[in-house]
Amino acid sequence: MEKFNVHILGCGSALPNLRHNTSSQVVNIRGKMFMIDCGEGTQVQLRRSRIHFKSLNHIFISHLHGDHCFGLIGLISTLAMLERTSKLHIYAHPNLEQVLRPQLDFFCKDNPYEIVFHPINPDEREVIYDDRSLSVETIPLKHRIPTCGFLFREKKTANHIRRDMIDFYKVPVYQIRSIKNGEDFVTEDGTVIPNARLTTPSASPRSYAYCSDTAYLPEIVEQIKGVDLLFHEATFGSEDEARARQTLHSTAAQAAQIARDAEVKQLVIGHFSARYDNEKPLLREAQAIFPNTLLGTEDMTVSIESTVKES
Amino acid sequence: MEKFNVHILGCGSALPNLRHNTSSQVVNIRGKMFMIDCGEGTQVQLRRSRIHFKSLNHIFISHLHGDHCFGLIGLISTLAMLERTSKLHIYAHPNLEQVLRPQLDFFCKDNPYEIVFHPINPDEREVIYDDRSLSVETIPLKHRIPTCGFLFREKKTANHIRRDMIDFYKVPVYQIRSIKNGEDFVTEDGTVIPNARLTTPSASPRSYAYCSDTAYLPEIVEQIKGVDLLFHEATFGSEDEARARQTLHSTAAQAAQIARDAEVKQLVIGHFSARYDNEKPLLREAQAIFPNTLLGTEDMTVSIESTVKES
Repeated sequence: MEKFNVHILGCGSALPNLRHNTSSQVVNIRGKMFMIDCGEGTQVQLRRSRIHFKSLNHIFISHLHGDHCFGLIGLISTLAMLERTSKLHIYAHPNLEQVLRPQLDFFCKDNPYEIVFHPINPDEREVIYDDRSLSVETIPLKHRIPTCGFLFREKKTANHIRRDMIDFYKVPVYQIRSIKNGEDFVTEDGTVIPNARLTTPSASPRSYAYCSDTAYLPEIVEQIKGVDLLFHEATFGSEDEARARQTLHSTAAQAAQIARDAEVKQLVIGHFSARYDNEKPLLREAQAIFPNTLLGTEDMTVSIESTVKES
Repeated sequence: MEKFNVHILGCGSALPNLRHNTSSQVVNIRGKMFMIDCGEGTQVQLRRSRIHFKSLNHIFISHLHGDHCFGLIGLISTLAMLERTSKLHIYAHPNLEQVLRPQLDFFCKDNPYEIVFHPINPDEREVIYDDRSLSVETIPLKHRIPTCGFLFREKKTANHIRRDMIDFYKVPVYQIRSIKNGEDFVTEDGTVIPNARLTTPSASPRSYAYCSDTAYLPEIVEQIKGVDLLFHEATFGSEDEARARQTLHSTAAQAAQIARDAEVKQLVIGHFSARYDNEKPLLREAQAIFPNTLLGTEDMTVSIESTVKES
């Protein structure tokens, strides 16, 4: 089966501590690696997770707080030392390029590869990445500065041809493509053979939504409806809800409400405040509302399995 | 006894790996904390070492390669979140301010404390810090960009008064200060009481030299002559001496030659290339030339003990 894995490299919040790294994840979709956020120390976590640096070509930055981007310059320098030559694409608020460019000019003058900045407008829902098998769109969030999440969606692949049926009905080769795309077959005597008889359905496209950092924002429910996996920040527990409101973060219960209302299949919570020595109470809070919740941890890999919907 | 400890927070080189952090140390002299270099992830190592962030007021940066300064912006931000109010002094090549200022303006707009940049000229030997009990001077080094080491020297403190002798010779109170400073006492009948009879000597001033990054540079021997502790980079083993020459780094044997020629009391080697899974051979190489060598490790604390030289 083709991979769709989310590797969590850091799920702490602004103050790094000995239990959590600052924010970063790598999404591996069929061998293509996409990084989301890059807090200080991300490159070491990347090594720890044994993810191949080389396969990483795209980095999405949710917002320009240091705990989501201070690791970029170190990672970029290391990629240069590893003699990378392929382009690195960075998707972020346009201010990132402004603040990173003087550092690149100074520390990475002889960079052997090109860095391509893709400015994004975190307030607009837009597709910022699109290829044959996948699209990534922004999820406008509500935080102290412009912030967006990211929604990864696989594209539907063609149905699988049933070779035995193709032979049985003597389907000519030139018609196979249209049958893969869902058309029926008409025999020489005019009999219609329904597509479902000639093919087996391909796996359902999988999806992953990353939402951090954000206040409780029910407006996102419609956009992330039914995703296979949702990562939602849960910086605080309910006893610190006032603090969450003040800093535009969410509680674990609020993360779970979003997951429940959006009818997602699974929820991972993270971006924990350094004030908690133990996040189990946050997990219990979330599970009371949305049972299929996991507590984010460093080095956690969540796999989204392929499922085939029978037509 | 008053502390003089060197805490090593990172002793790897440019490519961070799972065994070593990039360069950083904290020198604790009688409770005053001085940081030397600040590679990515230093703030987490600082927490791990349980050094109090609050006592850190001075940071010395040897040179502007990323593995010696990428951790500054994260540390500065964290100090702001911890509501620091006292000034933070940073001593570095003037380019550091140029490259850090746009980041500070963007990420640390509302910094609750002041950052004072002290430009240093790494090519000149100069005293860059001086207080009642301590001075720090630069050690010009030889690397691919302007680089200097740092030499910490305690100042000689006054001798200790022997209360019993003061009483015995009926020394008037107003003369005590000059006796502390080494003068003899003359009694009313003109007898000279030698100072050594009235005092016990204070501890010898202690000293620490940090030399990283540098090619083998015998010119530094005279400046660091007889220091209690020398940290000298040993990026490579002798089998990679050509690589050391090419990149303007030192081998372990060269570090030991400097230690031997400078007649230092103890040597710690560090800044190890990521190519070595085990630095024991580097230690053996150094010890063959200078036996009192230690292998630098993260979380290592080397204490320099007070000694009293009998006069």
